[in-house]
Amino acid sequence: MAKTVAECLRNKQARLQAQRPLIHSLTNFVVMNDCANMILTVGASPVMAHAPEEVAEMAAVSGAVILNIGTLTRSWVEAMVLAGQAANKAGVPVLLDPVGAGATRMRTEACLQILAAVKVAVIRANAAEAAVLAGLDAQVKGVDAVSGDALAAARTLARRFNVVAAVTGPVDYVAAGEKTYAISNGDVWLSRLTGTGCMCSSVVGCFCAVEPDYLIAAAAALVFYGVAGEVAAGKVALEPGGSPWPVPRGPLTYKTALFDAAYNLTGEWAASLARVERRDDV
Amino acid sequence: MAKTVAECLRNKQARLQAQRPLIHSLTNFVVMNDCANMILTVGASPVMAHAPEEVAEMAAVSGAVILNIGTLTRSWVEAMVLAGQAANKAGVPVLLDPVGAGATRMRTEACLQILAAVKVAVIRANAAEAAVLAGLDAQVKGVDAVSGDALAAARTLARRFNVVAAVTGPVDYVAAGEKTYAISNGDVWLSRLTGTGCMCSSVVGCFCAVEPDYLIAAAAALVFYGVAGEVAAGKVALEPGGSPWPVPRGPLTYKTALFDAAYNLTGEWAASLARVERRDDV
Amino acid sequence: MAKTVAECLRNKQARLQAQRPLIHSLTNFVVMNDCANMILTVGASPVMAHAPEEVAEMAAVSGAVILNIGTLTRSWVEAMVLAGQAANKAGVPVLLDPVGAGATRMRTEACLQILAAVKVAVIRANAAEAAVLAGLDAQVKGVDAVSGDALAAARTLARRFNVVAAVTGPVDYVAAGEKTYAISNGDVWLSRLTGTGCMCSSVVGCFCAVEPDYLIAAAAALVFYGVAGEVAAGKVALEPGGSPWPVPRGPLTYKTALFDAAYNLTGEWAASLARVERRDDV
Repeated sequence: MAKTVAECLRNKQARLQAQRPLIHSLTNFVVMNDCANMILTVGASPVMAHAPEEVAEMAAVSGAVILNIGTLTRSWVEAMVLAGQAANKAGVPVLLDPVGAGATRMRTEACLQILAAVKVAVIRANAAEAAVLAGLDAQVKGVDAVSGDALAAARTLARRFNVVAAVTGPVDYVAAGEKTYAISNGDVWLSRLTGTGCMCSSVVGCFCAVEPDYLIAAAAALVFYGVAGEVAAGKVALEPGGSPWPVPRGPLTYKTALFDAAYNLTGEWAASLARVERRDDV
Repeated sequence: MAKTVAECLRNKQARLQAQRPLIHSLTNFVVMNDCANMILTVGASPVMAHAPEEVAEMAAVSGAVILNIGTLTRSWVEAMVLAGQAANKAGVPVLLDPVGAGATRMRTEACLQILAAVKVAVIRANAAEAAVLAGLDAQVKGVDAVSGDALAAARTLARRFNVVAAVTGPVDYVAAGEKTYAISNGDVWLSRLTGTGCMCSSVVGCFCAVEPDYLIAAAAALVFYGVAGEVAAGKVALEPGGSPWPVPRGPLTYKTALFDAAYNLTGEWAASLARVERRDDV
Repeated sequence: MAKTVAECLRNKQARLQAQRPLIHSLTNFVVMNDCANMILTVGASPVMAHAPEEVAEMAAVSGAVILNIGTLTRSWVEAMVLAGQAANKAGVPVLLDPVGAGATRMRTEACLQILAAVKVAVIRANAAEAAVLAGLDAQVKGVDAVSGDALAAARTLARRFNVVAAVTGPVDYVAAGEKTYAISNGDVWLSRLTGTGCMCSSVVGCFCAVEPDYLIAAAAALVFYGVAGEVAAGKVALEPGGSPWPVPRGPLTYKTALFDAAYNLTGEWAASLARVERRDDV
């Protein structure tokens, strides 16, 4: 078990290479390809399966199970519960990404249903989704956070459901019990591409598959992903652009750079650029 | 309300920035990621939701609802009707993309079912799909137009269903009542990438969310998207290529350039390259 | 009918250009966009449709039907059987990609169900999936092959189901009856991107649509795809990279290069780089 975020980052490559854990995702249609590629890119083995007849069998042999409700239906939520319960039984960590919680009653209720039926290890959410699930005030529009106090949401969410709460935004907060990490890595370009939150959840899943301290695993994953986002931003032309813009600059150029950065980024390198501090609730 | 296509294009950035409308899409699996990214790229906020339990709630708070039957099933069509009716009730414009109408009986019937149950503001189609729905002769093979008189199809479709008909092809025609715009922007590279019609519909939806004259909104959207397609083509090596080809040239290079172009393109810049003329049916 | 793999490769462009066959895929959500783009890129016309009400109608007018169980459910498997049977009736070749066969009971059984109900022309699989279906020993983890004797699996699979068995890996084996081709084209980068097996199946489907000798068609397709993979690898920086890496190097840079390569690659050029030998079971 890693003692620090930096140690977890440094262990990452070796552990993923040695174990190459299967990451079983029940995720939304919009991001399936990107999430599978991100899981592959950081060194794990992605699988997507959602049929009720097979999810338990797949989850039981996985290193982590990711439940993402971005394009949910009743039958998908039922399959998520089956997968989550099988993961619980097998000691496999379960991560919940409550996409759009608060945007419709169905989404909020689906999250609560999953949290009641499954022991979730980590919730990775934006500030509004986290606040909604934590029972705090928040404004949600579709799947984007409009408002919400990320730090309060992380702490309250963590205690309410006894989970690691990883709430991402301009500053990310990762809370468990009284402990909280604040992570300032990342780049505004991540908000100009769809699915970057979902891909972040995929990376958290990969780290949880090889690091049993899920608080440290989640914090290390957010550093890793945030640094990849920063490195990728360095490959995109400076703003403001002109007409015509001088060099490649735009969301798909950034996307390519993001995956390439995640592929090339070592844990050591990420650790050297980490901007993490403790913000424990004392 | 914009009085001209150029005015609508010039207003675009300010309006999207001010309102950042939610664009709710029930679209096909093939293009979900691309359409979400295109909506984000032009400045709006994408959400995909198709569960019958939540579509009405989501549609009612959206700036536009897009119904795309590319990978339809009966249950998806039912959800589209629910979303469309909720949008109607809330005064939210509904756009229909009848992918593959005419290719199978089910697709044609699904479009007619939606058009009977929902007040559609804009139909964005290729020439064959439009002709089929307009009751004219056309040849369809899968989801590609094989033949069809685009101008006649646009005019007839617009009158038959009292909609704005936006029929895209080598020349795009946008018709409503007696009015017709002919738009000659675009590039042949757009036909070498899957989902470029669907992404075009996404852009039309974004414009309709901020411009209540849907004829002008659709025409402006086609100019914007067509100019983005032209600018992107300028980033791809000239044809014919050789073996080995000298610089990046191919569908994914073009795709990256297309998104980057749509991201960097201002309404002012697009207006300056617009090739629009009136072809009213007088 | 082509007499050799090289002849089939040389015919490819002219035949696809002349016929532009419709390739009807019932494939998994993760790769739908990539497979549609790959089919378009090599010159055919992709369509995705899975509703039981329309699959037979679509399959009957297609040049090939591809069944890929990567994100299967019972209802999708039923639609696959309907599509496959309609293709059989119309003389349209059916290709099966048994993604994850062996990973869960449901996947293995779905493949056997399809093979019992549909006359499949070609199975394109990795070594472990092929071995499982051939009744040989294999280790499967998720959708990645962990072990399996590819040559034995190809030969046994081909005989057991009287199909062309195209088993891909470091060396690809394409077997039918006593005949076997061994193909050494390809690059390790193909294993760092999700869906490259599925895209390979798409290319095999395109070749089978224009070449009635499916053994030769499948072998030619694997050469074509493998050479595209090699050419693309030449566009990515040499390994090992550094920190920061000097030029674009990573999975999405490779993906762009792969599609661009497949787009620019002529059959003649591919034939000149083919590494094929006969390994008949004599």
